[in-house]
Order: sequence, then structure tokens, then C-alpha cells
Amino acid sequence: MGIVVDSYDVIVIGAGHAGVEASLAAARLGYKTLLATLSMDNIALMPCNPSVGGSAKGQLVGEIDALGGQMAISADEACIQMRMLNTGKGYAVHSLRAQADKPFYHVIMKKVVENQENLDVKQLMIDKLLVRNDEVVGVEAETGEVFESSIVIICTGTYLRSKIVFGSVNYESGPNGLRSANKLSASLQEAGVELTRFKTGTPARVDRRSLDFSKMQIQEGDPELRNFSYISNITHREQVPCWLTYTSPVTHQIIKDNLVRSGMFNGLVEGIGPRYCPSIESKIIRFKDKERHQLFIEPEGLNTNEMYVQGMSSALPADVQVKFMQTIPGMEHVKMMRPGYAIDYDCLDPLQLKSSLEHKHIKGLFSAGQSNGTSGYEEAAGQGLIAGINAVRKLQGKPPLVLGRNEAYIGVLIDDLVTKGTNEPYRMMTSRAEYRLLLRQDNGDLRLTEKGREIGLVTDERWEKFTKKRSEIERVMHYLQNTLVSPTEEINAKLISAGSVPLKKGENLATLLKRSEMSYEKLQAFFGAPEISPVVREQTEIQCKYEGYIIKQKQAVEKALRLESKKIPADIDYFALKELSNEAAEKLDKVRPDSLGQASRISGVSPADVGVLMIALEVHRRQEAEKQ
Amino acid sequence: MGIVVDSYDVIVIGAGHAGVEASLAAARLGYKTLLATLSMDNIALMPCNPSVGGSAKGQLVGEIDALGGQMAISADEACIQMRMLNTGKGYAVHSLRAQADKPFYHVIMKKVVENQENLDVKQLMIDKLLVRNDEVVGVEAETGEVFESSIVIICTGTYLRSKIVFGSVNYESGPNGLRSANKLSASLQEAGVELTRFKTGTPARVDRRSLDFSKMQIQEGDPELRNFSYISNITHREQVPCWLTYTSPVTHQIIKDNLVRSGMFNGLVEGIGPRYCPSIESKIIRFKDKERHQLFIEPEGLNTNEMYVQGMSSALPADVQVKFMQTIPGMEHVKMMRPGYAIDYDCLDPLQLKSSLEHKHIKGLFSAGQSNGTSGYEEAAGQGLIAGINAVRKLQGKPPLVLGRNEAYIGVLIDDLVTKGTNEPYRMMTSRAEYRLLLRQDNGDLRLTEKGREIGLVTDERWEKFTKKRSEIERVMHYLQNTLVSPTEEINAKLISAGSVPLKKGENLATLLKRSEMSYEKLQAFFGAPEISPVVREQTEIQCKYEGYIIKQKQAVEKALRLESKKIPADIDYFALKELSNEAAEKLDKVRPDSLGQASRISGVSPADVGVLMIALEVHRRQEAEKQ
Repeated sequence: MGIVVDSYDVIVIGAGHAGVEASLAAARLGYKTLLATLSMDNIALMPCNPSVGGSAKGQLVGEIDALGGQMAISADEACIQMRMLNTGKGYAVHSLRAQADKPFYHVIMKKVVENQENLDVKQLMIDKLLVRNDEVVGVEAETGEVFESSIVIICTGTYLRSKIVFGSVNYESGPNGLRSANKLSASLQEAGVELTRFKTGTPARVDRRSLDFSKMQIQEGDPELRNFSYISNITHREQVPCWLTYTSPVTHQIIKDNLVRSGMFNGLVEGIGPRYCPSIESKIIRFKDKERHQLFIEPEGLNTNEMYVQGMSSALPADVQVKFMQTIPGMEHVKMMRPGYAIDYDCLDPLQLKSSLEHKHIKGLFSAGQSNGTSGYEEAAGQGLIAGINAVRKLQGKPPLVLGRNEAYIGVLIDDLVTKGTNEPYRMMTSRAEYRLLLRQDNGDLRLTEKGREIGLVTDERWEKFTKKRSEIERVMHYLQNTLVSPTEEINAKLISAGSVPLKKGENLATLLKRSEMSYEKLQAFFGAPEISPVVREQTEIQCKYEGYIIKQKQAVEKALRLESKKIPADIDYFALKELSNEAAEKLDKVRPDSLGQASRISGVSPADVGVLMIALEVHRRQEAEKQ
Repeated sequence: MGIVVDSYDVIVIGAGHAGVEASLAAARLGYKTLLATLSMDNIALMPCNPSVGGSAKGQLVGEIDALGGQMAISADEACIQMRMLNTGKGYAVHSLRAQADKPFYHVIMKKVVENQENLDVKQLMIDKLLVRNDEVVGVEAETGEVFESSIVIICTGTYLRSKIVFGSVNYESGPNGLRSANKLSASLQEAGVELTRFKTGTPARVDRRSLDFSKMQIQEGDPELRNFSYISNITHREQVPCWLTYTSPVTHQIIKDNLVRSGMFNGLVEGIGPRYCPSIESKIIRFKDKERHQLFIEPEGLNTNEMYVQGMSSALPADVQVKFMQTIPGMEHVKMMRPGYAIDYDCLDPLQLKSSLEHKHIKGLFSAGQSNGTSGYEEAAGQGLIAGINAVRKLQGKPPLVLGRNEAYIGVLIDDLVTKGTNEPYRMMTSRAEYRLLLRQDNGDLRLTEKGREIGLVTDERWEKFTKKRSEIERVMHYLQNTLVSPTEEINAKLISAGSVPLKKGENLATLLKRSEMSYEKLQAFFGAPEISPVVREQTEIQCKYEGYIIKQKQAVEKALRLESKKIPADIDYFALKELSNEAAEKLDKVRPDSLGQASRISGVSPADVGVLMIALEVHRRQEAEKQ
């Protein structure tokens, strides 16, 4: 046992994207918090892609922002290119994506955490989780220093017993050659935490000067100013382009010829890799018929010539990485600055966690981020924020914040993790959300700011801005729904001029706006609809035009929530329910879902099993009622 | 044997302060150069104090600038406070010192090297030096990639087989938890390089918010704008203060009570530490009677609350570091963000090197910086620049650039290293220079720009600025020496009004300016001396006022140069000179000095030995003459 040097309300291990949000949330809620990082120089490090957001991830960032998290504001500040993705498709899948200046993002986030009241940031290698009677009591650092706390949040990312592998190179290391945390894994296991082993990877970084951009397609940022956060004070942004190019059959041949030398296939990589972000060698094996794969060349920052080769993650030897990149248009004379590599690491099986992200059997132990088997900065930050909030709510004796699948991608993410588990690094995608028309990029604030305010993380400034916007939307919607226009000749002439069908009977403006060719701007021009801000205009149009779909999706939510509201007693004995299949009883016993809704999403639990459960719950409810 | 992937004219291993200068020099001189770093994120890292310059070191920076190096310009850019030290003493010891924003200094330098023509920067762990028949042929990386070159410059700083130690913590690591280079040492030894083991250390970093500055003395930057480089385009600078406080007898008692727990005394530190930058525990043992030691609290950058505690380097356990810091005025509630530590590393015995910094027995192998047993960023950068220059001059078949002890601190530094060696980390001090009145902060450009121009590193812009300044000085000096003033009543009245003795006979203005109470400004007021720029005025005053001393020191130089000009044949057999003492013969044989001057500075070589040598050289000269 070491030397007790201090005590905290909350201790967060790891200062990546999860740890930063977790520690900020706890400290901002007034609790004395320690953020322990193994390198002060790598707080909020982006060890892989130089971007924040993207499909489904942009929504996560918006949700983090609405709840009072930090990622959105810092990403806006470090952004060097912003684009709304999928604008050719419906609003449900529009997602914001920022290229970020990596070193600057770190500098900003370090500054934020260092200046947060109630938060101490310390460089500490945590070797031990201290647990007494299945309750967390603190942590011990390699220095022998003990920091006491009844709450510890694991945000160790890819650092647990991690090793870097490419070709025959193979050494113990966190990302980017940083120290790996080698002793904490054993201590977690000793405390009863089950660990598994995952793998992720990163592509090479290449010298901008060695590329011929004339052979690639330019991809520029959106001309209009966009921010993740509506309280960002960024009003102008210098944007730099990315570039699109493709692999070729020659590239694929070189990779195939050298597969045996890849860390993925020479036995050095142990962990399971991410299905949706595979190495280039895995892509070439898996998609044999594909003649080319797209690659985005993205700047790592404004002050460097290092360019990230998105899509080229690899554990092939360095010489092969150079050789195959030289077959790519515009990269014929490429100079590699850093090789790509795979990284193998320990992470938790998230089925051990409750929806609050607390461990089921170790009181006070929370876990968030890549250590829960996810992939991606945004997934990590979303979990970190929830873990930080729920750590505090535990201290306050309040029920945890559990976001519904209909409320937030964060809800989908955590529900998926704790209900279905994951046997490979989990990445958020819009297809994982059943109500994605409700979970839009544009309405994160409308969905979640009120929740954030109740929790205590939404500042007065944010709340004021939000309520002003919300009431402006309500006012405009009220105006549109209550403003009737008649089928006069004058009005019909205007509609015809706009390529729209003339009115046969009176209609309100909200109905008129549903027409695909109509826009709020036209309502202004034709009927004198009031001047409103662009965000309110966008929101109004979406709410009118998608009204039918939104109502349908809300009805589906209602139905699902009925199952969700049927809570399952914590002490239920599944094995006593003889009508359940063996598999269902085992899975239910492992996950121990909170509700019938959660139970229904467990793989291996059939609709018949859900029926059995429903009856059992009804019997249980009656028995309880009779007792009283 | 690995796979040959590329070949270079010059390969530099390590991108710290030495490696950056070495690689820039070689590339700027037109040679295809590789800068190999084990971490792209730590180019030009300042792992210890957040400052550049200081006593004697400021002069080194000025010299690097005059020769066309980079450190001065980048330090000016990253500077957050600039002070001229020792202004209470003579001009000989005035030294410029900058507080630098550490992360920003790295960003700037990374940008410079990445954009340098002819220079490739790559993240590579070099495992092997490739040597054939005692000639360098290249390097091999851990990836198996071989890069061919006939020149390799070792700039490995403290990374060779390094380990971090404090208290009982002890792990293989470069500074700041970075990877250590573990295989290169063995490869160097195999090639015939002799290694020794040194130690250095760094103090804790503490949270600015936890300090009470009202109990410390403020130390602000100079109000006037100063730059290291006269071609810097910095015209305004926000400056932040440092703070002075002191240890107390209680501090010392805590340290004494815990000495057995220090890495310095528990057997974990193997290397020899720096005499002039010892750990606090060493200071307390060595200076038993001293009641207090001064400590400067210095900011690590503008964007961080981390503060560096200069003077507190320690290998005591983390808990003891906190405990003793809490006894220091203003630090009672200190929060430690990173602990101090000692670092042990392999370095070369510099007696193996020629004055060019090339290895005596391995052709094409150069070494510069901390790997030569020095300490300090400036010492490293100065050597790096010379190694880079001499690598190129070797390729060009030109004689190496060897700066005299009368020309530059860089000359003193390298001569000390290759003549006397060093049995502890060598730090530059003004007392090491015998002609320090010639080697001033203010005249680095006048001493060395012409040499830099000949070598090819002085740009047209710099040369133009320099020659303009130089000719302005010459013009003013000529004017002052040739403008006679007569002892008229009017003039004498003016002199008396300035507190100066009236003239008895005519005197030129240069002589008048020697008077301590006279200044160039007064010459302007009294005699209408022309308007000149401040740097020219300063230089003119120094040259006039110190003329007597400067002349004397130049005479001493003349005398010394006579010995310096007596070259010793490379193949001389010292053991055949029976009149030499055994010790002298051994030392001379090891160092193999270039000249009688260098021979005379070898410890163990007495004036009598020099006499013997002088006669032997004369005999040799006559024999050679007779042959012809």
C-alpha cells in the first residue's frame, strides 16, 4: 500500500476525449475531481484521423454540446475546414464534419481542463484500482501515491497493455510511441473486471510537398460558416482543402503480395479490429472484387506538412507502405513521414456495465470511451460526458441520466453497448438508430438542452440563447399554422410563377410549406412571412416538410416506450422462468436489463421470450400489489 | 541486413536542438539530408527549462544566428519574456535570456524543418549505424529500412538507453515518457564508439493556480524590445513575468530526511550528473551551510498553467517533492502537475572526436549535442550547426570550420570537449572563455557573419543588413577618431555641465567617449555627432570605452595564436619523444591535438611538455624542409 496524498470526489484515469469530458462534467457540477494522465503533453490527443464529426458522429458532437460538454466548442475553435455531409440526402443523415488542427486541439483542451475550477490535472501513471468489498476506494500511481475516491472513471482508451505492430515491428506502446499502461489491466482483473483485447490502426502520414494534387480531386469546406456549437464565438474561419484519390489494381496486387508480412497476418496482432474502419489489407481481402478504394488526403494542421491518408490504415512493413502508396495517383513520389501501424489493447466487455456506465459489480467504478470497446473520438466523448454526469448523480443520490434511443445517438450508443455488448470496436452509424429522423444534426439542442439544464451543465448564456431560439421557432410555427391564405387569383398566380400548384381552397402557411418547391423565403416574398434567423428558418422548414414522417416516428417511439416503461425488478431470477429458452435466460441474466424494452434488444432473446417475460412481470406486479 | 529504401548525402539521427541545426545547415547548403526522429511530435522539444539563452548561452545563440543557424530566430518568435542578464556588470558578461513558449517553439521548429528544401523529416527509430571498413555507409531503422549515406550525425541527446528515475520509479524512457533508443548504443559500440553514462534531471511542474505570488518577488522582462537575431521580424512582444522565491531550512530538513529515497542515492541512478545544474538534494549535501537556495518559477507557455520550478531538479519520490515544495514561501498549497525526475543516458566520450566533430576512427561519423556529453539546448544547437557545416565541408573536400577560442563560445565549447573531454555534463559559462571581452553578446554578428557568408549559410538578406550595420559602425568610428575638439571655453563649459573634466588640449571624440561619464548621446548634444541607430551607438560606445582592454586581449590572442599556428603532424609518435612525461605522451596520443596550442590545453600536459613538443616540431619542420 502506498502513501495517501489526497482525496477526491471523482477520479478520472486518462485524459483523452472521454476523460476530458468526464472530468469537466464532474468538476463543473461542483465536485473535486482529479484528471490523471500519463502524459500532460497528450491531453485530448487525436492519435488517428485529424477530424471531428462525420456521419452520425456529427450528431454525437451536437448532443455533447447541448448537454454542456466541451468537444463541440473546442472542435469549432481548432477547425480548419467544415463540411455538412450527405446534403444530397434527407436531413436525417446530414452530419457535420470538421477537419481539426491536431496540435492546436490539444493546446485548447489542455487549457480548458487546466483552468477548470475544482479540477486538478496531474501526470500520473495509475497502476492500481483500489477496491474494498466491491466498492472503489481510490487509485495508486506508480509513484506509490494513493489518491482516495469513492468514484473512479476508467477512460484509458487504447493504452491498457497496448502494443504497436507493423510488419515485424512490435513493441509495448500507447499510440504515437507514448507509454502504455501495463499494470492497471492486472489490477482491474483482480478487482473482477473482465477484459478483452481489441485492435485498431492508423494510416501513414505523408509529406505534403511530395504529393501531386493535380492528379486528385479537391474537396473544399462549405462556403457558409458552420459550427458544431451554437454558442461558439467563431465568426470567420480560414479553410484548407482535402484531396480525394483512389487505390488501383496495382496497389492491391502489391498488398496481396506482401500480406504475409502484415502484422494483421503474421501473428503479431492479437486483438479484434474495427469492421467499419479496417486496415487496407483487410479491405482488399474482404472486398475482392472492388477495383479501387477511395482515399482522402487530409491536413494534420495548419503548421505542418504532415498529411493523413484516410483509408490506408495498415500494419504492413514500412517499405511496403511506401511501395503501395507510390501506385496511387498523385502519390507517385510520396515521402512517408510516419508509418501506419496497428495497435492492440485491453478493453472492458461493456456488458458488465449498467446504462449509467457504472460497473454492475464494483460500486463506484465507471468506464467510458475506447476502454468500453468503442472506436472514435466522438463515441468516447459522449460516453465520457455521461459517465461524468452519472458519477456525480451517484454522489448526489440521484437516478442516473439514461438517454433513450429516441432522444440521442448517445442513448443508442450506450444502450447498444450495455445491451448487446460488442465483439469488435463499435462505431456509431446512422443505421444503428431506429429513429434517425428524430435524431438530427440540426436539433441536438432542441432534444437535449433542457436535460443538460436540469443536470446543471447548461450555463445561463447557453440557456438564454437556446430558449430564445426555441421560442422563436414556436412563434413562427404558430404563425404558420394560424395564417390562412385563400385561393385568390393573385395568390395562385404567385404560386404558379413558383412552379407550384394553385390553391383550390384556403390553406395555412404550414401546409403550404410542405410542398417540395416551397421555401420559407418564398412565403416571405409571397405572403410577407416575418424575417427570422437562418437557424430558425431551417428548423421551421424541417418541422413542416417532414411533419408526416416525424409524427409516424414519434408514434413508433410511443409504442416502443411502452416496453421501455415496463421495468424489470433487479432481483428477478430468469432461470426460474421455465418458459424462457436457455439462451435467453443466460443472456438476460448476464445483461440484467432495466426494462422489457432493453430485454427485447438482447440478441438471443426472441419475441416469444419477451412474451414470457411480459406475463411474468404482470404476475409479479399483481403479487406486489396484493402484498400492499 | 534490411531493405535499402533511399540514400542521402547526410543523415542526422535525432531532431532536438542539435539535430535541427545540423540538418538545416546541411540541407541549406544544398545537400540531400534526412532528419530521423523517434517522434515527429517532439521535434525541438524542450524537455527541461522553458528558456533559451542566459549567461554565456545567450552568446552561443547570437553566434548560431551569425553563422546562419535557426535557434535565435525561432527563440525570438516563441519568446514570452526577454531579459538582458548581468547588466550591472561589464559588457563582457551581458547575456540575453528568453522565456520560451515550449509547445510553440516545437511547432515553429517543426514547421521550419518540414519546409526546408533538400530536407526529409521522418519518424524512424534508428537501431543501427552501418559501417564498412571504418567508414559510415548508412543507418538501419527498426522497420528494417536502410538509408544509405556516407555521413551520419549522431544527435541523440539523452535518448540512448535512457531511463527515468525518481524515488523507486525507474523505467526505460526518453525525456517526458518518450521512447528511448535502446539498440543504437550497442551498434555504436560495435562500430568502435566509446560510450559513457551521464545523468541529468528536471524539476517538478506545478499548477499556477496553486501558487501565492504575493509571497514571491516578481521578475519582469526588459521594457525595451530585444531579439537574439537582428534579422528577426518581431517588433512587439507580450511579456509574462517569472517569480523568485527561496528554499528554507525546513525544506532542507525534509530533503535530508528523505535522501535515502532519492534515485540519486538509492542506487538507481548510474550516470554522472551536471555539476552546475545539480539536483536539489545534491545541492543540499554539497552546500551544507547555505540556508537557502533561490528558485525561479517560470511559465511553460502562454496557454498552460504549468510552471517550471527552476532550481528544484530532483529524483526524490513524488510525495517528498510535494512535501518539500510546500515549505517554500508562496508554494504552501502547491499542486504538482508533473514530478521532477532524473534521466540516465549513454553519451560519447568527446575525446574521440576531432575539432570538426567527426569521429577520429570512423570516417563520416559526426556527433553533436548532449550525446557529446554537454548539457543545455544552446550548447547542443551550437555543436549541431558546426557538425552540419563540417559534414558538408567533408563532402565538398574542404577543410572543416574550426572556430578559435578567441572567435566564439562555440570554439571554446568544442575545443574544451575534444581537448579536455568531460567527465560530467558540460555546461558553457563565461568563465570558460579566456577572451570573454572579445566574445560578447553584442558582437556575435561582427565576429562571425563573414565566416557564415563564406560557408554559404548567410542569406543575402542577412548579409545586406549586416554589411550595412558594419559599415555604419566603421563610418562612425572613423568620424569619432578624426573629429578633433579644441579646449575652447564653450566646449569646456559643456563638459563641466556634464560632470566631466575640461579639456587641456585638443582631443578626438573617440578619446572623449572613453570617459565613463560621456555617452554618444552627449557627443551628439555637445558636438553635433551624427544620428545613428541604437545598435550602432551601443557598438561604438563599447569599442571606444573598452578599447584598451580589447587591445590587450587581442594581443594575448596573437600570442596564443602563435602556438595555435604550430600544427602537429597527424602521424606524430608521441611515445618516441622520450623527454615527454608518460602521462603527457598518453594524453597527447589519445587527443591527438591539431596544434601546439591545443596540446597545451590538455590536462596533464605541462609547460615543459609543450617545450619538448615545440623543439620536436622544429626538428621535424627542418627535416621536411631538407627533404625538398
